[in-house]
Amino acid sequence: MKALFFDGLQITLVDLPIPTPGPKEALVRVRLAGICATDLEILKGYMAFRGIPGHEFVGVVEKAPDSSWVGRRVVGEINIGCGTCAYCRAGLKRHCPNRKVLGILNKDGAFAEYVTLPLENLHPVPEELSDREAVFTEPLAAALEIPEQIHLQPAQRVAVVGDGKLAILIARVLTNLGVELTVVGKHPEKLARFRENGVQTIVVGQNSPAPQDVVVEASGSPSGWETALSLLRPRGTLVLKSTYSEPLSVRSAQLVVDEITVVGSRCGQFPPALRLLAARKIRVDDLVTAEFRLEEGVRALETAARPDSLKVLLRMSE
Amino acid sequence: MKALFFDGLQITLVDLPIPTPGPKEALVRVRLAGICATDLEILKGYMAFRGIPGHEFVGVVEKAPDSSWVGRRVVGEINIGCGTCAYCRAGLKRHCPNRKVLGILNKDGAFAEYVTLPLENLHPVPEELSDREAVFTEPLAAALEIPEQIHLQPAQRVAVVGDGKLAILIARVLTNLGVELTVVGKHPEKLARFRENGVQTIVVGQNSPAPQDVVVEASGSPSGWETALSLLRPRGTLVLKSTYSEPLSVRSAQLVVDEITVVGSRCGQFPPALRLLAARKIRVDDLVTAEFRLEEGVRALETAARPDSLKVLLRMSE
Repeated sequence: MKALFFDGLQITLVDLPIPTPGPKEALVRVRLAGICATDLEILKGYMAFRGIPGHEFVGVVEKAPDSSWVGRRVVGEINIGCGTCAYCRAGLKRHCPNRKVLGILNKDGAFAEYVTLPLENLHPVPEELSDREAVFTEPLAAALEIPEQIHLQPAQRVAVVGDGKLAILIARVLTNLGVELTVVGKHPEKLARFRENGVQTIVVGQNSPAPQDVVVEASGSPSGWETALSLLRPRGTLVLKSTYSEPLSVRSAQLVVDEITVVGSRCGQFPPALRLLAARKIRVDDLVTAEFRLEEGVRALETAARPDSLKVLLRMSE
Repeated sequence: MKALFFDGLQITLVDLPIPTPGPKEALVRVRLAGICATDLEILKGYMAFRGIPGHEFVGVVEKAPDSSWVGRRVVGEINIGCGTCAYCRAGLKRHCPNRKVLGILNKDGAFAEYVTLPLENLHPVPEELSDREAVFTEPLAAALEIPEQIHLQPAQRVAVVGDGKLAILIARVLTNLGVELTVVGKHPEKLARFRENGVQTIVVGQNSPAPQDVVVEASGSPSGWETALSLLRPRGTLVLKSTYSEPLSVRSAQLVVDEITVVGSRCGQFPPALRLLAARKIRVDDLVTAEFRLEEGVRALETAARPDSLKVLLRMSE
């Protein structure tokens, strides 16, 4: 099969054997995959990953231990737990200490014609969703992790720091909750995309909004941390979505005196994301910047790295 | 009146006029004051405070707008709010943006024969409490701020990082809740003090306990941050009590991937502290290292700064 393989230095198109699924795994023929900021970080050394990246995909089951799955169109949760630890038993395989993570940690990913995943990680895609919509299930689930972790009240003031594609998905999740939403970004032309459904936008450093109850840091830039803190009210909550490559410099007195809560936030669950997509309560099709064939993968990754790009997709040939 | 005055460079015993209380304030004759780690930080420049430090005290009301208070023995909450902002109206003057803080911010403190405070900040001391017990109301309230901010469940595993006097008060508050408590410190001789009521103690770096649901960082040392993170389970909560003078270096990926919650924690409310002291549910009298007369204040501060000191008190002459 064709696949994009990262050897630690560069990523190239290679020909590899079709992977053999494990006893509880399915073999999935990938139809469409999405390029995420994490993939670009991996190419810079994040997680010291070697192999096939890619963790956002939609595909069709070709083989499965339960034959009723064969032929079904699916998306797949990316964390593969051991199945026996306390986290796995509590339904939190996202935090299994021995987990593998698709295309990120000890598991080949979806920038390939085929991928394997445990059956329990798969979710059928409702018919009414196109591949281009379904491929957003994973990043939308990551945005939905925020209301899973903290209680967001409809009358609260909430700000999002960042104006990239994750910030857009988060803003759309938050808009659905009825909160008073402000998006704070660096790029006026990117902020223009947020100006819908009553969302206010502010360019960083220009007039500041009223103190916020909750601020989500999703800028991916370390300066976003200070921006987020400056927007919060005392006893407010900072949801941290960004992982910066350099360490943050944090003044502890600022957190203690104002009694700020910081909540790290990562992957979410797929069912609510699929429900919201199928019910057309969150739009995603306008976030696609470009679609490339898998064979053009290197160029696709270069395009995804451009500051003005939103989602770049890889289409596998039929 | 006699008072200890800090001019930004040194602290000296001076003679000053007895302060005049404002319209809603009482004049309190101080009987006993406690020296806190924050006082020692102030002498190093924290908050750029100039004036009379001291925010832990017990005294007797000499003048008050409501004469029924005169002659009562009191302790006093240290945050003085504007009285009109949203925080003050919500009973959170601790977070009033225009607040003064006794002996810390724009308000002379209790290392003096007299202090003034708004009547609403005062709490009568139950008769059964000695001055030496009542003077612990403020630091005990700071320990009780932890269960005010987060929901601690009785079956949880909780660790305290630190082996100083604040750590002891926090450990005693936590012991009362029934949690499985571990104290992690650097000094075996200090840790010995914690070994009561089933509390386990561990020297930093030696065998690690099971992953903790909640870790309270109260060591006052920046290395305590990494120790606290290393003890936590995924999705655990780090309560940050320490304010370090130097900035912390924080790896954001650690907070995001493990979805850690960090909660800054500062001052608490006095009524539960007074209830627990009066009910003898939390012992404090064993925490006094030494008592000095106000006139010996400089020596008292030196004693308080010694690593083996717990609480050092200042007694005002009658």
